[in-house]
Amino acid sequence: MARLHQNGTSSGWHVQASKLSLMTSNPIREVVENLKLTPNPDKPFITLSIGDPTCFGNFRPSNLTLNAVKDSLRVKESWNYGQTVGNLKARQAVAEYYSARQNSVSANDVVLCSGCSHAIDIVISVIASPGQNILVPRPGYMIHKTIGEGLGIKMKYYDLLPDCNWEVDLEHLENQIDGNSVAIVINNPSNPCGSVYTKDHLREILKIASKYRVPVIADEIYENFVFSGYKYTAMSSLSDDVPIITCSGLTKRFLVPGWRMGWFIIHDKHNVLAKDVRRGLLNMCARILGPNTLIQQALPAILKNTEEDSFNEMMLFIENQAKRACKMLKNAPGLRPIMPQGSMYLMVQIKIEYFPKFTDDFQFIKQLCSQQSILCIPGKCFNYQNFMRIVLTVPENILIEACGRIIVFCKTHFTDVHKII
Amino acid sequence: MARLHQNGTSSGWHVQASKLSLMTSNPIREVVENLKLTPNPDKPFITLSIGDPTCFGNFRPSNLTLNAVKDSLRVKESWNYGQTVGNLKARQAVAEYYSARQNSVSANDVVLCSGCSHAIDIVISVIASPGQNILVPRPGYMIHKTIGEGLGIKMKYYDLLPDCNWEVDLEHLENQIDGNSVAIVINNPSNPCGSVYTKDHLREILKIASKYRVPVIADEIYENFVFSGYKYTAMSSLSDDVPIITCSGLTKRFLVPGWRMGWFIIHDKHNVLAKDVRRGLLNMCARILGPNTLIQQALPAILKNTEEDSFNEMMLFIENQAKRACKMLKNAPGLRPIMPQGSMYLMVQIKIEYFPKFTDDFQFIKQLCSQQSILCIPGKCFNYQNFMRIVLTVPENILIEACGRIIVFCKTHFTDVHKII
Repeated sequence: MARLHQNGTSSGWHVQASKLSLMTSNPIREVVENLKLTPNPDKPFITLSIGDPTCFGNFRPSNLTLNAVKDSLRVKESWNYGQTVGNLKARQAVAEYYSARQNSVSANDVVLCSGCSHAIDIVISVIASPGQNILVPRPGYMIHKTIGEGLGIKMKYYDLLPDCNWEVDLEHLENQIDGNSVAIVINNPSNPCGSVYTKDHLREILKIASKYRVPVIADEIYENFVFSGYKYTAMSSLSDDVPIITCSGLTKRFLVPGWRMGWFIIHDKHNVLAKDVRRGLLNMCARILGPNTLIQQALPAILKNTEEDSFNEMMLFIENQAKRACKMLKNAPGLRPIMPQGSMYLMVQIKIEYFPKFTDDFQFIKQLCSQQSILCIPGKCFNYQNFMRIVLTVPENILIEACGRIIVFCKTHFTDVHKII
Repeated sequence: MARLHQNGTSSGWHVQASKLSLMTSNPIREVVENLKLTPNPDKPFITLSIGDPTCFGNFRPSNLTLNAVKDSLRVKESWNYGQTVGNLKARQAVAEYYSARQNSVSANDVVLCSGCSHAIDIVISVIASPGQNILVPRPGYMIHKTIGEGLGIKMKYYDLLPDCNWEVDLEHLENQIDGNSVAIVINNPSNPCGSVYTKDHLREILKIASKYRVPVIADEIYENFVFSGYKYTAMSSLSDDVPIITCSGLTKRFLVPGWRMGWFIIHDKHNVLAKDVRRGLLNMCARILGPNTLIQQALPAILKNTEEDSFNEMMLFIENQAKRACKMLKNAPGLRPIMPQGSMYLMVQIKIEYFPKFTDDFQFIKQLCSQQSILCIPGKCFNYQNFMRIVLTVPENILIEACGRIIVFCKTHFTDVHKII
């Protein structure tokens, strides 16, 4: 009854939001909002910021994928509630897909989620408690921060090395682990870096995880997004004792990000996670009762019947785009593009000391948009200063136009401070 | 580094699950698991437990609904990432649907979610913090407990009155409100009770909410599920000062539970929720990046083109099933069915004192399954003793067979204790 007289506002209504919700923030959205962008009205606006390969119209899901859904539409199981962990047939299809390509898993090790972000959400919410921490890459896509911080889970950042193709700084990683560390997130191939790790490098990471008994969350949503000469290796295929929870989904490779069909796969040879963690994972699935069953029903046909080489064309396109952008941007004074080995992004260093008019990459990006109507995501969104991320899946002519305008922008604002002195 | 030597198991691995995940439990699943059911192998198993009108094969989504999805499949917006709150056109369609039927809302007041449970998940996670409490009905569908308890949010139960068509015990509701109460959940029409509240009764509830300045979460997933002679009234249409967040979706009425297309709608005439709460709601949507865009794309056609009277046949069927089951079960000694006014469930009281062989409704349900191969959900799952819930959407012949077997079971075990004495 105390409530009746305790409120402070004039209307008497005083409704607050939880700390969880106020601390659940998306760094990309916040930074882009803060940029208060005003593109140059005289130049068509080009966004190199959206990690959705289908949004430019040049990539679309295969007819096989679309027909699998069409064919599923009139099947009862496509309307019914599904199991909270995903329906058995769909989980079996995922298990078979990975068993054939990586290492043997059963349907019981697979949990279907509403997209890869939801998979990461569930895994982090189960494996980490308030006050504990998760090791995440810097630079990195910050979904873990979005998900974990509101729950009181701390992010500890380990560095990636731009001069070594963004490999993990192993010493730094090891130094970051403490008594409250409960997971190491490895994103391979990487967003935003485009790195693809060798087997040897992945084994080095596993050695550290094993030494400190910290499980690995392998964010492999860009699995097989590799350029010619590189090879994707699933973290799980190399681990003996370290439990690996792999997160992935249809999103990027099958070109249906909006369908929200993701999954996680538990690799745990020695049943370290058997008791509590599996129970917790199962429990968390009860919150939204599983992903869309229409897509689940179509999943076996999509995974079984899609030819492996149907992805080759897209990967070749992205690789050529990466080469093209790197070649062009080497002519942009003050920039250093770092050629990726896979995924669909290019990181470009902004040597901010050559742009004395701009205090930081944030100002650089803001002015690039105001003057040239080009939007890139500033490194800040990946917890990394003086870089910007470029999405490579835009159509070729748009990428060329965009790089051209970036070059003009850099030439306009580049100042060789050494020469002045 | 402390970590290296601190673990206790023989393998050195000691991975724990968070309290959040271990406390996120689904009462129905837990109770049914604990029942350790073994149906009688000589009788075909009949489940009256699943709240999915499509799972028995007698109800299916309309061709209009299915074709709307088929037609959307080849549209780019059906593959793209959507807005985290749902795409504008889909939100507009929901706003128009409700504006025409209930009261005026705009697309900005609508947030699309992965099913109604996800809508409730987001709303509760934002509006309540650890240590605060939410008023929820008893008996009631316990999704709020599943969602809230792991987050440290307490459920306080207000009683419904079985002898007054399950109306809210207003005095009890008022007494349950304290200084930490942040929301009242009203589920109308109700699962499991099948009650449909009058305008007057809803106004009485709003008076209490207004007096104590507690917002209402209106769980109206069974909107318009009413039998002849009754009328569904949206809580939001009656409120002046009390902010109402209405949760609903396509699930039940449009017969596509597996599609996970739900929403919540913010009704807040005096902008009480404007600042923090709207921000929090928006933030929480970033965790899984919005519901399936294929269904979103189809949503305008489904909502605009479905004829209002296309639901009549289903409601008449459910009403007749309710009448049939009540009529039959009145002949089951020791049971008292309470005729519902809507939704798709029937609550049946088990006068356990007449079944001295069974210690509680739990034992009654277990033996009903062992002997007659009938599964009903025990009242315990709705935080209510000595009742069971029967789903009315099963085919007619199955309901008749099931009621017949329940009668046999009751006649076998009924003992008039007064006569013995």
